[in-house]
Amino acid sequence: MDLRQEVRAFARTHLLDGPPDLASRTAAWHAAGLANWWLPVEHGGRGLSLREGVDVVDELAYADAGFAFSSLVGVIGSTLVDLYGDDRLRAEVLGDLGRDGGFFATAVTERDAGSELDRLQTTAVPKGDTVVVTGEKLFSTNADRARYLLVVARHEAGAADQPHVAVVVPRDADGVAVSEPWRTTGLTGSPVHRVALADCAVPTGHVLDGHGLRLLEVGLNASRVLIAATAVGMARRIRDLCLDFAGRRRLRDGVLGKHPLFADKMAQVEVEIETMRSQCRAAAADYDAVRDDPDAARRFARRGALKSALVAKVFCGQAGWRVASTGSEVFGGLGYTDEVPIGALMRDMRHVSLVEGGEDVLRDVVYRRFTAPPVRRA
Amino acid sequence: MDLRQEVRAFARTHLLDGPPDLASRTAAWHAAGLANWWLPVEHGGRGLSLREGVDVVDELAYADAGFAFSSLVGVIGSTLVDLYGDDRLRAEVLGDLGRDGGFFATAVTERDAGSELDRLQTTAVPKGDTVVVTGEKLFSTNADRARYLLVVARHEAGAADQPHVAVVVPRDADGVAVSEPWRTTGLTGSPVHRVALADCAVPTGHVLDGHGLRLLEVGLNASRVLIAATAVGMARRIRDLCLDFAGRRRLRDGVLGKHPLFADKMAQVEVEIETMRSQCRAAAADYDAVRDDPDAARRFARRGALKSALVAKVFCGQAGWRVASTGSEVFGGLGYTDEVPIGALMRDMRHVSLVEGGEDVLRDVVYRRFTAPPVRRA
Amino acid sequence: MDLRQEVRAFARTHLLDGPPDLASRTAAWHAAGLANWWLPVEHGGRGLSLREGVDVVDELAYADAGFAFSSLVGVIGSTLVDLYGDDRLRAEVLGDLGRDGGFFATAVTERDAGSELDRLQTTAVPKGDTVVVTGEKLFSTNADRARYLLVVARHEAGAADQPHVAVVVPRDADGVAVSEPWRTTGLTGSPVHRVALADCAVPTGHVLDGHGLRLLEVGLNASRVLIAATAVGMARRIRDLCLDFAGRRRLRDGVLGKHPLFADKMAQVEVEIETMRSQCRAAAADYDAVRDDPDAARRFARRGALKSALVAKVFCGQAGWRVASTGSEVFGGLGYTDEVPIGALMRDMRHVSLVEGGEDVLRDVVYRRFTAPPVRRA
Amino acid sequence: MDLRQEVRAFARTHLLDGPPDLASRTAAWHAAGLANWWLPVEHGGRGLSLREGVDVVDELAYADAGFAFSSLVGVIGSTLVDLYGDDRLRAEVLGDLGRDGGFFATAVTERDAGSELDRLQTTAVPKGDTVVVTGEKLFSTNADRARYLLVVARHEAGAADQPHVAVVVPRDADGVAVSEPWRTTGLTGSPVHRVALADCAVPTGHVLDGHGLRLLEVGLNASRVLIAATAVGMARRIRDLCLDFAGRRRLRDGVLGKHPLFADKMAQVEVEIETMRSQCRAAAADYDAVRDDPDAARRFARRGALKSALVAKVFCGQAGWRVASTGSEVFGGLGYTDEVPIGALMRDMRHVSLVEGGEDVLRDVVYRRFTAPPVRRA
Repeated sequence: MDLRQEVRAFARTHLLDGPPDLASRTAAWHAAGLANWWLPVEHGGRGLSLREGVDVVDELAYADAGFAFSSLVGVIGSTLVDLYGDDRLRAEVLGDLGRDGGFFATAVTERDAGSELDRLQTTAVPKGDTVVVTGEKLFSTNADRARYLLVVARHEAGAADQPHVAVVVPRDADGVAVSEPWRTTGLTGSPVHRVALADCAVPTGHVLDGHGLRLLEVGLNASRVLIAATAVGMARRIRDLCLDFAGRRRLRDGVLGKHPLFADKMAQVEVEIETMRSQCRAAAADYDAVRDDPDAARRFARRGALKSALVAKVFCGQAGWRVASTGSEVFGGLGYTDEVPIGALMRDMRHVSLVEGGEDVLRDVVYRRFTAPPVRRA
Repeated sequence: MDLRQEVRAFARTHLLDGPPDLASRTAAWHAAGLANWWLPVEHGGRGLSLREGVDVVDELAYADAGFAFSSLVGVIGSTLVDLYGDDRLRAEVLGDLGRDGGFFATAVTERDAGSELDRLQTTAVPKGDTVVVTGEKLFSTNADRARYLLVVARHEAGAADQPHVAVVVPRDADGVAVSEPWRTTGLTGSPVHRVALADCAVPTGHVLDGHGLRLLEVGLNASRVLIAATAVGMARRIRDLCLDFAGRRRLRDGVLGKHPLFADKMAQVEVEIETMRSQCRAAAADYDAVRDDPDAARRFARRGALKSALVAKVFCGQAGWRVASTGSEVFGGLGYTDEVPIGALMRDMRHVSLVEGGEDVLRDVVYRRFTAPPVRRA
Repeated sequence: MDLRQEVRAFARTHLLDGPPDLASRTAAWHAAGLANWWLPVEHGGRGLSLREGVDVVDELAYADAGFAFSSLVGVIGSTLVDLYGDDRLRAEVLGDLGRDGGFFATAVTERDAGSELDRLQTTAVPKGDTVVVTGEKLFSTNADRARYLLVVARHEAGAADQPHVAVVVPRDADGVAVSEPWRTTGLTGSPVHRVALADCAVPTGHVLDGHGLRLLEVGLNASRVLIAATAVGMARRIRDLCLDFAGRRRLRDGVLGKHPLFADKMAQVEVEIETMRSQCRAAAADYDAVRDDPDAARRFARRGALKSALVAKVFCGQAGWRVASTGSEVFGGLGYTDEVPIGALMRDMRHVSLVEGGEDVLRDVVYRRFTAPPVRRA
Repeated sequence: MDLRQEVRAFARTHLLDGPPDLASRTAAWHAAGLANWWLPVEHGGRGLSLREGVDVVDELAYADAGFAFSSLVGVIGSTLVDLYGDDRLRAEVLGDLGRDGGFFATAVTERDAGSELDRLQTTAVPKGDTVVVTGEKLFSTNADRARYLLVVARHEAGAADQPHVAVVVPRDADGVAVSEPWRTTGLTGSPVHRVALADCAVPTGHVLDGHGLRLLEVGLNASRVLIAATAVGMARRIRDLCLDFAGRRRLRDGVLGKHPLFADKMAQVEVEIETMRSQCRAAAADYDAVRDDPDAARRFARRGALKSALVAKVFCGQAGWRVASTGSEVFGGLGYTDEVPIGALMRDMRHVSLVEGGEDVLRDVVYRRFTAPPVRRA
């Protein structure tokens, strides 16, 4: 059984048909040996590449985008620990996650620093052999059940060119308070919380090596490609729901599924799906090419955000939204009720464009880094 | 105080700030003398034109699209009674609505006759001086609280070229059963029900004069223009929410509201709003020109669906959706939470494209009636 | 015969079938009493409103957008002379145009002041009872054959808040040199020239009363609505070419014209046409309401650009382009040859978005004047 | 020097700066060893994969899409000869092309069989050891200068399930008449002709082995991916023209190139470029995976059109058109003149959507083969 089939079988049993609570799903996912699938084998993980991760997420999101998102966001923190943590931290954190399949949440965004991360107000103050973290984070997926939080903070002892740090804060550290989950428009399977950090002291070794914002960019390369891949899975689900409905829906002398207008729409959906997938795979391959280099940590730190990953996220947000808009028309009035899940899929799809950098923000990065002269453009 | 200001004042007091239950809002709307605003003055109504109705609905939908929709759908049944009912029915039904401001629901769609109304299975069988109506209707807004239901049914004694009738069925007639409301994606202020009609006998005089499907087209001219007008109000609301947010949101050295990219998007939203409104007004003026003719009933029956009304509905569904998509990006991650109502507005906006004929269905009518040779095109 | 029929008959005889040279067409247009159709009756004109002008241009552009554009641009200069010229200038210039149907060109744009007119380098220097105009204008339609040019220039004696003037320069004044026409992408029937003004002395009475850039905005209200109306005519032409082709083109067992996919596209084209036309008419009505006021000159000067006119131009540029894109697909490979004029229509349509202010520029005005707080938005 | 650099150097010398005539360009291209770059090494070719061909075409189209198209279309005929010709034909035809770099044109489309190739009227009648071909072909690129034409014709002795054949007709065979080139909207460097075949007798060995329409699908897999790749090159050119212009164009206190609205548009163009390229590369890799199989001929014949190739063509037509539309706005009025080549690029870009199957036709194939139940969808 290949990887896609393996994940598809899981998704059918545990997501499409199983109980909806995140805890039992997460346990099953870990039992299947797939929790944090990117973790190195030496730390008990599956050691899958990002290219393979695209397929995993595509299959999960077909069944439940909320679970897919919940499962993938840990890639940020754990990748950064792997690349920029010291041996001790790596062994502790990655070993932990490899053993028990727990969550690694990311806590970056603040109310007054939406897209401008250099405005972050959370502070990390060195104190003896600890660093003390204080601040309020607006959105953090899985924070409540997580084992660790990756927190980006202003480093009070930081160099001018490196004013921020990325710190690994254990969820159960003193001073960490996690709110009830936000009520969100969609993606109900993926709880988002506010996190308050009040004088949380963590060992100095929990501070990753490098400029916090730059490291964050490195981690986001992986999560953005995987978020883009959720759009592929959701779009396939929408297509299949439409096809199933259209195969039963009588129209004139036949069924909707035989009508040229429906056929044309679905073929365009197919065009979007195929193109999204090609871009996700191309971006993942770019990422893996760096990741597989022994010098990956330095190369990533030098490059920061990868163009193809930014493009995957922007494009899949747009193409996925076109698919969702098409899909929601196919069912007519029924699509406006809870008899078909198209309304929920539409809301879930919106997520792709909104999290981890909206389109405008990402395009701004694309232009400054990869387009504006004197950049050498490809 | 002009009409728009009057409605705006009501909306502020009773919709934006008041209690959310439909019953108290409806009572206040009636107390303000605006329930069923199109009813002729002689029957206790306000006698407003469709052109004025566009402004009423625009203002209501700015505050609450659900209430706007709930308030406008009665225009179908009551207009048809006014045009195609006999004097007695007109006096009874319109007098009733004029006096107590009740709802007149429409019950047309059936599960197996979505867009193809000539497939309706509900029957109307003459029996003595009554007609007996039997069938299941899938969607009927306000049906539970309505005074009357307009039911379109296959007429068992109908001529070959006029196989359907439109019948006025009192809500409290024996045999009428109304389901719990559907759970819908949006428009929560506007309850939609299934209606079962089991051997409902109504007086023969409750059958309107003419081909049931043709009359329905006539009534839909008014409601489709008004549904289109809800998109104008919702789009204005989205624009204003965005502007308010952007005026506070810090960005670089200033606020988001000063950023050229935001400005450009909002100006495009303004372009959509202005164009939607012009089309709604033009369509309403077309309608009013026929409605004001003493021979309106015959002229409408001959013409059926008006091109400009179909266009208003299709275009506002599209333009409104573009506005909602833009709006939902402005707030970033916050727009995905319940802190701002943009998610709800997006769901409400989807409604415009889905009810009373999806885009494909309406375009099919446009092509066959107004575009395909040998039609004389304007 | 009503106005549309009158223009349609002219277009059939002289544009669709007649000789293609601009001179003979222009002469026929004048002979038909329609040259400069907006000129007041007292000056020998037809005295048509802008609302009527929309229909005139719609019909002309159906046959030839180049001729339509060539015929309409004179509305800027002659309207400004009518509103802001003194009696003598009015009598001379408008009488002239009314008598012989000549062109009134506009010469504003300069190479280094594309969309930012406050950067204009052309100067107007008072000298005795004359004003001496010097500069280079990049684009001026009809300049070579024109009787008059409306030139906007920096006024060397202007007040700080009124640094520009609008001056009427006779084409045959000493110092006026007009280049060969630009080679343009489309709109071949409408020659555009560079104009060099070298110490052109004109009487002081040729300077219009008011801020030159503000007056220009007033004049552009009329021309922008009429340019928008060319998109309506071109879109109707594209639709009709498609329908004619599709009626003959065999497809499967029938013709393309019966295919649901083609029908759906054409109906969407119809939606665009109807909506463009409604917006053009609404904007023209807004304009006429001010124009008909005895105090029009002052009211216009106070308001400058009208929102509905800006919106008409932006929207028709967008919707017209969607229609042209659709149309060019209908013919397949044949549409890429000169066997059908769709390629030319596509190029002509592009013009609507590009002249007299691109979309970005116009949206910037819309936002600053009509959207951004503390503006009172409608 | 890698392949892209090699082609780029050629393009700079011979296309951007060199003489514009096709003959001298073609000679230089052959002299550079790149004519028919896909030909096997054993026949004197370069033996490049389709994946490498995507890069070649991308670079050529950056400089001149007409030359790119002219150079790539021969891939259809020569690939089919390689896969489905006998040894003798292969040696003759491929050896010929390898030696002298000549053109291999395709002559398929007929006036009454646009997208429905089963309606082709051209006949191939067996006569002794020849086949006699007679008919009229509407469009054939390079036909006049070609060495060979690939003609698809109805086989008068064909089996019911294989009624068409693909025949290699030497350009100089008796009975071949080639018209003057069509006047086309764009792509002037790539002459398209009508071809009349009057009793052209060719040896039986010139008939390829297999169903003519199926073989054509196989050949189109390669050319469609390469046509899609022309959109990548043209889009990059448009981007660079825009950036160069914007770097010089003053705007407010700086230049257009620093304006956020311009930056956002260019970044979106970058998103389209990257996504188009990823899809072209993915489709080429799919193709190469089959092509490299010793059993390629049979595998291709069984599969016919590849989904990823169809998607590449449809998507790049759409995305390229979005880029061209954006580009043509950047230059304002200047973009409507011949001072900048954006008008020509826009017309060239249109070609991608129109040749070798319009969008509707390709989507119809996508739906029937890869989407509609009971297809197993990916």
